[in-house]
Amino acid sequence: MRFTFSAALAALLLSLVATASAADEDGYDLWLRHRPLDRAAQAGVQAQARSIVIPGAPSPTTQAALTELNRGLAGMLGHASAPASRIADGALLLATPARLPELGAASPLHAELAALGNEGYLLRQTRVQGHNVTLIAANSDIGLLYGAYAWLRDAATGARLEASSAPKLQLRMLNHWDNLDRTVERGYSGQSIWDWWALPDIKDQRYTDYARANASLGINGTVLNNVNSKPEVLTAPFIAKAAAVADILRPYGIKVYLSARFSTPLELKETSTADPLSPEVRAWWARKADEIYKVIPDFGGFLVKANSEGQPGPQDYHRTHADGANMLAAAVAPHKGIVMWRAFVYAPKGAHLADDRAKQAYDEFKPLDGSFAANVLVQVKNGAIDFQPREPFHPLFGAMPKTPLVMEFQITKEYLGYSTDMAYLGTLFEETLETDTKTSTGAVAQTLSGMAGVANIGSDRNWTGSHFDQANWYAFGRMAWNPQARARDVAAEWAALTFGKRAEAPVVDMMMMSRETVVNYMTPLGLHHIMGTGHHFGPAPWVDNLERPDWNPVYYHRASRDGIGFDRTAKGSNALEQYAPEIARQYADPKTTPEQFLLWFHHLPWDYTMPSARTLWAELLVRYDKGVADARSLQARWVALKPLIDARRYAEEEQRLNRQVNNAVLWRDACIAYFQSVSGLALPPGVKAPAHPLDYYKSLSYPYAPGRG
Amino acid sequence: MRFTFSAALAALLLSLVATASAADEDGYDLWLRHRPLDRAAQAGVQAQARSIVIPGAPSPTTQAALTELNRGLAGMLGHASAPASRIADGALLLATPARLPELGAASPLHAELAALGNEGYLLRQTRVQGHNVTLIAANSDIGLLYGAYAWLRDAATGARLEASSAPKLQLRMLNHWDNLDRTVERGYSGQSIWDWWALPDIKDQRYTDYARANASLGINGTVLNNVNSKPEVLTAPFIAKAAAVADILRPYGIKVYLSARFSTPLELKETSTADPLSPEVRAWWARKADEIYKVIPDFGGFLVKANSEGQPGPQDYHRTHADGANMLAAAVAPHKGIVMWRAFVYAPKGAHLADDRAKQAYDEFKPLDGSFAANVLVQVKNGAIDFQPREPFHPLFGAMPKTPLVMEFQITKEYLGYSTDMAYLGTLFEETLETDTKTSTGAVAQTLSGMAGVANIGSDRNWTGSHFDQANWYAFGRMAWNPQARARDVAAEWAALTFGKRAEAPVVDMMMMSRETVVNYMTPLGLHHIMGTGHHFGPAPWVDNLERPDWNPVYYHRASRDGIGFDRTAKGSNALEQYAPEIARQYADPKTTPEQFLLWFHHLPWDYTMPSARTLWAELLVRYDKGVADARSLQARWVALKPLIDARRYAEEEQRLNRQVNNAVLWRDACIAYFQSVSGLALPPGVKAPAHPLDYYKSLSYPYAPGRG
Repeated sequence: MRFTFSAALAALLLSLVATASAADEDGYDLWLRHRPLDRAAQAGVQAQARSIVIPGAPSPTTQAALTELNRGLAGMLGHASAPASRIADGALLLATPARLPELGAASPLHAELAALGNEGYLLRQTRVQGHNVTLIAANSDIGLLYGAYAWLRDAATGARLEASSAPKLQLRMLNHWDNLDRTVERGYSGQSIWDWWALPDIKDQRYTDYARANASLGINGTVLNNVNSKPEVLTAPFIAKAAAVADILRPYGIKVYLSARFSTPLELKETSTADPLSPEVRAWWARKADEIYKVIPDFGGFLVKANSEGQPGPQDYHRTHADGANMLAAAVAPHKGIVMWRAFVYAPKGAHLADDRAKQAYDEFKPLDGSFAANVLVQVKNGAIDFQPREPFHPLFGAMPKTPLVMEFQITKEYLGYSTDMAYLGTLFEETLETDTKTSTGAVAQTLSGMAGVANIGSDRNWTGSHFDQANWYAFGRMAWNPQARARDVAAEWAALTFGKRAEAPVVDMMMMSRETVVNYMTPLGLHHIMGTGHHFGPAPWVDNLERPDWNPVYYHRASRDGIGFDRTAKGSNALEQYAPEIARQYADPKTTPEQFLLWFHHLPWDYTMPSARTLWAELLVRYDKGVADARSLQARWVALKPLIDARRYAEEEQRLNRQVNNAVLWRDACIAYFQSVSGLALPPGVKAPAHPLDYYKSLSYPYAPGRG
Repeated sequence: MRFTFSAALAALLLSLVATASAADEDGYDLWLRHRPLDRAAQAGVQAQARSIVIPGAPSPTTQAALTELNRGLAGMLGHASAPASRIADGALLLATPARLPELGAASPLHAELAALGNEGYLLRQTRVQGHNVTLIAANSDIGLLYGAYAWLRDAATGARLEASSAPKLQLRMLNHWDNLDRTVERGYSGQSIWDWWALPDIKDQRYTDYARANASLGINGTVLNNVNSKPEVLTAPFIAKAAAVADILRPYGIKVYLSARFSTPLELKETSTADPLSPEVRAWWARKADEIYKVIPDFGGFLVKANSEGQPGPQDYHRTHADGANMLAAAVAPHKGIVMWRAFVYAPKGAHLADDRAKQAYDEFKPLDGSFAANVLVQVKNGAIDFQPREPFHPLFGAMPKTPLVMEFQITKEYLGYSTDMAYLGTLFEETLETDTKTSTGAVAQTLSGMAGVANIGSDRNWTGSHFDQANWYAFGRMAWNPQARARDVAAEWAALTFGKRAEAPVVDMMMMSRETVVNYMTPLGLHHIMGTGHHFGPAPWVDNLERPDWNPVYYHRASRDGIGFDRTAKGSNALEQYAPEIARQYADPKTTPEQFLLWFHHLPWDYTMPSARTLWAELLVRYDKGVADARSLQARWVALKPLIDARRYAEEEQRLNRQVNNAVLWRDACIAYFQSVSGLALPPGVKAPAHPLDYYKSLSYPYAPGRG
């Protein structure tokens, strides 16, 4: 579209854009909104970026940095800065020692810079070549890009413009549980963003915007396809498609990985077995790796879910997980690739079941510590069951000193209300990462070589289904960069970037209470895995008829006339012995067990006296009621925020918060109705009876619930 | 977001919006882009809309009209018009006789207005109450809304601002083949826009924009779910979800319909049979209709696919299609609902197969003419096979004088290159609608009570997968309003609205040649149904091993050493006898059969002499080569248009046109390789040999192709 510029037109266009930016945001821009600053802030930012100088030859990564800086300045100030070739006063200078000799060994910044490694950056007001500049310095172009995003973040939020930062973890990964047909297992935000059919010829603009968003957080790897993988993803047409994505992500420092199905060569009928010790199989994988690296020279490697939930694996050939992982590791090692081998395993159908599913991963993997090849990482979920609203940390953390571990969090909220219910996961990440393992490694975070987040990203316009679920992507990325980051600080940053400074404080308050709210109305006091079958939506503590005992909610809550909870002490499954002795001792006694994990580790009588002096039964009811009350509080707090939020995002979240209240009431009523039917206890005065009889809740079904993949 | 207005800010915002509108469009706005006009055009439009007056009490529909007019004026002129309560010079006046007594029996416009029916409108420069106004008059508020869209269309394209129009067909419907899990059968533009899981609480902004787009074309009904329906859609939770959609669509004159699975009550275990003559079943459907109308008072009715491709139906109980349709019709009749009963039937597995699948619908339905209840319409595909790139009109048109017929077109391009290949279907619609049935009804269009289009709408940002596929939605809507509309005129309108006047002519040229291009590289000279199995992508004329003979491409092309084509004359299947005698006579002789249908009706030797004086074999090769050449021409024409198209839409279509060329070459090469293997004939000099041997083409597979639903 071209049109003639005129004053009248200018005025009217202005009115349009003013209306549009004040009125309606659809969330597509995520936290990279680059909205206009107030005048005072503009002056400050302007003074630091009168020109943008990146010495040396442009690279795709410095071009990305320049483009984003100009986009940010155009948004915040209304005009871009001219790229300049010479350093002048007021320049925003992006440089590595290779690009600017002044940053070399003689530089006063040399030591600080050297300590930042390949991906770190520093932001500094300084003098270069006799000029006052704002310096973004790093040892590599990707460090410059990260620094550019940090500078933009600071500019947008008014945070201080002087800092240095380097990632504490080497691998900061998203895992897409995205299928080749664009369905997404446990996806609640539309289809997969990866349009495999259209690739490699048709490259959606989203791929670039996805790269920008991730680079702004420091995420440096992405597994494109579901861990429940298919053989076809490793055929030539799909490798070409993955290569097209890799080409788009590469300038942003993001490597592409693929989930590999262990039986791929056998299923493609190119070998006669998938036995990891078979020379034929080893040769096939080596050739396949060569084929991949030919078109994706920086291919990250494979993620593998083996011998778990029906997936094939080395145990099918009486080999160990280490045998399987090391075979794949050998194939990618010549190319500097890695293998991430998931510890989420599960006795095969018909095999002897452990007395406690929570113990299985530790039992299988702890003995393998030291057996894995150097380029194998074991990827362990944050807890030993499965991404519950709250779990104690997985006992493998701190227990495998010879094996690099990657912690797998679920960003998508399979068990926390899909993309409807508000649940800021920063607090969940923080709670897990900061827990002391009581081993030599200290906090859980110290045991890690990387973090992987099961993505909540889909084709929905706002990427994540709800606006607030963007915060979980953001928090994952920021905390993968720095696992010691505080959830509240990250929330504040996100809220300011997403809704503006005026809304920051009340939005942060909502976020910080949100996950505990969900825990309370779903699984208070350490309850877990009492949700609906298959889709995992809604309450179903009564389910007791599934094929495997450890699929049933009754297996986990063990409620009966005598009490409730899973005894994982020495009197029970003794899962506690998988933890360091100090933790095992502390948690062996309900009196010293954190209340939030009480029923995770103990089976207690209904009249057990809680710290509140209430009985366990009464306390359980209090928690469920608190969950509902807090869901209503979230709803009310959002209503109060209406004047500060644009109309569209306000309405979209309002609808979700209304639904969340209904969901909270459903959980509360169904669980109380069920547990009352088991305990036989009356509701204390003042506790509202469930709206319907138990049979009503049992009768509810959710056909076509999303995320079945 | 709020910010303080300042001149500096204004300038920078202006630069932003100017850049944004000139640079990047994502297609979401469809043909309702409302982009700024040039100054001369602005003056003209401004003069007609100094104020907007809608006398009488506002209704949701007049509010929709007012909102859209203001949106349009703000976009085209830069400012909205103040709604006014008094008529003044320069007012845009929207009125019905009920709203403005001057339009009553004494009005000079009375007769003209009366002739426009409930949905028509007129646009007129006239004097009212002594003032010069632009009048949009209609007999109902929905007529006013249609008139408002017509006025905006004229304003945007510079067309004349004086017209009257009324729809020629009563039912103008979209059929969504959208499943309850958001997959879309034959969908190539993402997921279903209907987020059943989120409904009814969460109402996507898209629902409103969908309503606006459809109302702008005059579409007045939509079937929300796939004809391959599921019982759950008629349960209370899903009825509530449909009701939420109906509430959003209602102000835009669009009724909601549902596809009903014939066996619903039986499958929900609420009856013991689905026999349409069972009193229990009849009572169930009557109660179900009451339940639906209670929450959707203007529910349109049911669309039914019965006894076709595995769907249940009345024949399961040895009842006729009329028995089935009339039973449902009785249930909705008290509520003024209708039943659309599809004629796309198919002998059940194991039953006697007709000698020609093309004959089946006629054989089954022609004898039922006169047996259907008054509120039953029979919905007939445009051709007798299945939405092929080209088909002769379905012989049922003109053959069921006592039954109202709805013609079903497929807007989604199942057989015409998905949403990748450019194929403007206006020419397909026109070709079918204007064909003379040679019966008393005349042209096919004269036989119709309605048109239904299988939607190509999905969750993709641009709605339809490619920008040019928006034109097919547009053309369907405009031609359902007026089946005599010319495809070229409709294309011109769409092109001007979508890409601007400067691009109109060359874009129209591309559109007008595009479908013939696809016919040539896929199925020239009357070939049909030679595509890949299941997904229907790509060439597969060699397939001969499917369970049913009439699923196999070889059944349709019948190529052998002696010749090619399906003999549907009296010597063959005699499908011709289903047409009027005059047509049957004309098509019985290959010399008088339109060349485009030659191999549809005739099996001819390879050396048959074509009108071009070439042999049939040589002509076939010429057509395939022309298809490829024209695909390349489309590609080149688009490149030439680059200066006139915004960068994003240009690039997105360019990628698709590049892929289309590859697709054209694939079809051409594979079909030539195959037909040559059958004919045993050499390629004439100058005809390029296929790039690969036949086995290569046979080896291609397309796992995870979209649209399998």
